[in-house]
Amino acid sequence: MDFDNLLGFIAASMTTAAFIPQTYHSIITKDLSGISLGMYSAFSIGVILWIIYGIRIDSSPIIVANIITLGLSATILYLKIQHMRQTKETQY
Amino acid sequence: MDFDNLLGFIAASMTTAAFIPQTYHSIITKDLSGISLGMYSAFSIGVILWIIYGIRIDSSPIIVANIITLGLSATILYLKIQHMRQTKETQY
Repeated sequence: MDFDNLLGFIAASMTTAAFIPQTYHSIITKDLSGISLGMYSAFSIGVILWIIYGIRIDSSPIIVANIITLGLSATILYLKIQHMRQTKETQY
Repeated sequence: MDFDNLLGFIAASMTTAAFIPQTYHSIITKDLSGISLGMYSAFSIGVILWIIYGIRIDSSPIIVANIITLGLSATILYLKIQHMRQTKETQY
């Protein structure tokens, strides 16, 4: 692996791993009121586009990281929607 | 701009724009208890590494998107730290 790929993997690991404490926090505390539905909806769609981009430019850091990120962001999105249904919350 | 760059820009726009509703939500509601400090700390560092990676592989979508994302994620991180100081909250 060359330096650029290594750098990309570290960057990807950080921005992907970042969603682990948020997912954990959201699961444990069930405190979803401060989480934005708009963010996790747009983010999950964007991550799917990143995966397609990564495949096309043949960048393995982008592909691998975004597949994992999608799993985490989709989990938070699911918890948020579940929370909104339970609390009848309406928000942006 | 070729198709791959366009796709990258759309992907980057989505995952960057996603942080706008979260930043707005956090500023307006001041509801930061459900936001993970660990996420926004790790995420901001990761985004800085993405900017360096983007410069090295000469990918303008990665560079531009991550500079904007850094501004938004750093704002949320600042609000979270401010919230923790005010509430004496300790968490991961």
